[in-house]
Amino acid sequence: MRTALIQMKVGPDKTDNVARAIQALHRAAEAGAELAILPEMFCCPYTNASFRANAETVGEGVYTAMAEAARETGLWVVAGSIPEREGDRIYNTAFVFDSQGRQVAFHRKVHLFDIDVPGGQRFFESKSLTAGDRATVFDTPFGRLGLCICFDIRFPELSRKMALDGAQAIIAPAAFNMTTGPAHWELVFRQRAVDNQLFTIGVAPARDEGGPYISYGNSIVCSPWGEVLARAGAEEALVLAELDFTRNDAIRVQLPLLSSRRPEVYRGAFD
Amino acid sequence: MRTALIQMKVGPDKTDNVARAIQALHRAAEAGAELAILPEMFCCPYTNASFRANAETVGEGVYTAMAEAARETGLWVVAGSIPEREGDRIYNTAFVFDSQGRQVAFHRKVHLFDIDVPGGQRFFESKSLTAGDRATVFDTPFGRLGLCICFDIRFPELSRKMALDGAQAIIAPAAFNMTTGPAHWELVFRQRAVDNQLFTIGVAPARDEGGPYISYGNSIVCSPWGEVLARAGAEEALVLAELDFTRNDAIRVQLPLLSSRRPEVYRGAFD
Repeated sequence: MRTALIQMKVGPDKTDNVARAIQALHRAAEAGAELAILPEMFCCPYTNASFRANAETVGEGVYTAMAEAARETGLWVVAGSIPEREGDRIYNTAFVFDSQGRQVAFHRKVHLFDIDVPGGQRFFESKSLTAGDRATVFDTPFGRLGLCICFDIRFPELSRKMALDGAQAIIAPAAFNMTTGPAHWELVFRQRAVDNQLFTIGVAPARDEGGPYISYGNSIVCSPWGEVLARAGAEEALVLAELDFTRNDAIRVQLPLLSSRRPEVYRGAFD
Repeated sequence: MRTALIQMKVGPDKTDNVARAIQALHRAAEAGAELAILPEMFCCPYTNASFRANAETVGEGVYTAMAEAARETGLWVVAGSIPEREGDRIYNTAFVFDSQGRQVAFHRKVHLFDIDVPGGQRFFESKSLTAGDRATVFDTPFGRLGLCICFDIRFPELSRKMALDGAQAIIAPAAFNMTTGPAHWELVFRQRAVDNQLFTIGVAPARDEGGPYISYGNSIVCSPWGEVLARAGAEEALVLAELDFTRNDAIRVQLPLLSSRRPEVYRGAFD
C-alpha cells in the first residue's frame, strides 16, 4: 500500500484549510500514493470553541469536498478528522472515502482527551465533544485497516481489538502536544506496532508556534518490528511510505505473539 | 521502595550460581535495598536440557537457600526464576520471600517463549516447560507489586490486568536475547510503564558470549512517565533505584488513562 501522510498547517480559516488539504491530496496522487491521510482536525484549530463553530453534519461542505477530492484524485482518503455535528452533539470524526468518493467507513474518537499536566498542557476535549462507542476497521483493496484518533492510540485494548479484528495497519490522525509528543509519540506508535505485529501510522498537523494549540508534528510510520520507517519533522510535509503487509505475516510466524495470547488469564481484566 | 536489580552471570554450575546470588543479595542489603530481584533462570543456563536437569520442587535446595538469604539479609527477595518441578511438570517460576524468609507469592510464566527468527534466534521453551495460568500481584510494606516473567511482558493484556489489580510496579525477571533485546527491550518496558502509569523493572542475566543462550542484559527501571531511571549494560551489575509510588498517583491525575478506559468498546476482544 503506497501511503501519503499529509502533515499540513491548520489555520483559523476553514475554507483555506480545506483548499490546502485538497491541493495536498492532488500532490499525493501525483507522487503515486494510493491512500492519503489527513491530520486530526485538519479543517479548524484545535480548541473547543473552534470545534463548536466549525461543526458540520454529514454531507455538508468539508465532507463533500473530501469525497469529491477522493473521486478527482482517485485516492482512498482518510479525512483526518472534522468536528461532526449530529443533533445537539459534536463528535471528533474521521471519514474514509474510496477512490470513487464513496464513504466506506468513519470513526468517532472513543477516548476524549482531558489532560492537566501542572506546568504543561491543560485541555478538556470533553467540554465540547461526545465520545464515539465503536472500534473501527474497514476493508480496502490493499488490506483491512484500523482507524482511531489521537488519544485512542494510548489505549492498548483498542489497538489489540483492531488487530484481532484483522487490521494490517492502524491509522491514527492525531495531534499530540509539546508535552506529550516528545515524551510519548514515537514510543506509543512503535510499541503498538510491535505488540500487534502490524504497521502503525500517525498523521499530525504541522507545528504552528503561534496557534492556540501547538501540535508536535512528527507524522510517523512504524513497521511491525517497531522500526520507524518514515517520520516528518515539525514543518509541513508530505511523507510517502510503501507498506508491505506480507511482513506482518512473516513476523507473526517468527515471533508468535497474537497466537500465544492466553485470554483465559486476562478475562475479566477489561470488564 | 529501595530496589536492587541483580544482573548476574549464570554459569553451568547451580551451586556456584546460587552462592553468587546469595553474595549479591548481601551486597544489595548493605547498599540499603529493601527489595532485591534476581534474573530469570538465575540458577542454571537458559536451555531446555538445563531446565530439566536442574528442576527442583518447592522446599528443595535453591528455594530454601533463597528463603534463608531473605531472612539473613532482611530483604524482600524476588527469586528471579527457577525451573520448578511439580509431578511430571516443570514451570518457569519466580518465588517471592519476605524479609522473614516466608514465601508470600509465586508466578509461573504464563506465556512460553517460542521464537524462530530466520538468521536470528530459535528457541522453543514449550518443549520442556508447562505454562502457568494466573496473573500475579502481591502486597508488600512498600505497595502492591505485579510479577511476570520475560515473554509475559510482551502481552499488554497481562500488564493491564496487573495494573487494574492495583500493582504500583511490574517486576519482570527476563532474558531477552541479542535479536529481540536491541529491538524491543527498552521499548516494551517504557511503554508498559506509560500505558499503565506505574514503574516497570526488568532484571536480566549478564551477557555471556560463550554461553548457550546470550542474554541482552540491560536490566532496567522505567518511571510511570516512561523515563529510563536506571539501566545496566551487558556486564554484571548491581543496579539500585528508589521508586516513589506517589508519582503514579500524580501522573494518573494529570493524564487520566486508567480512568478514561472504555471497557464496553473493547469487550469481547479478549475472549
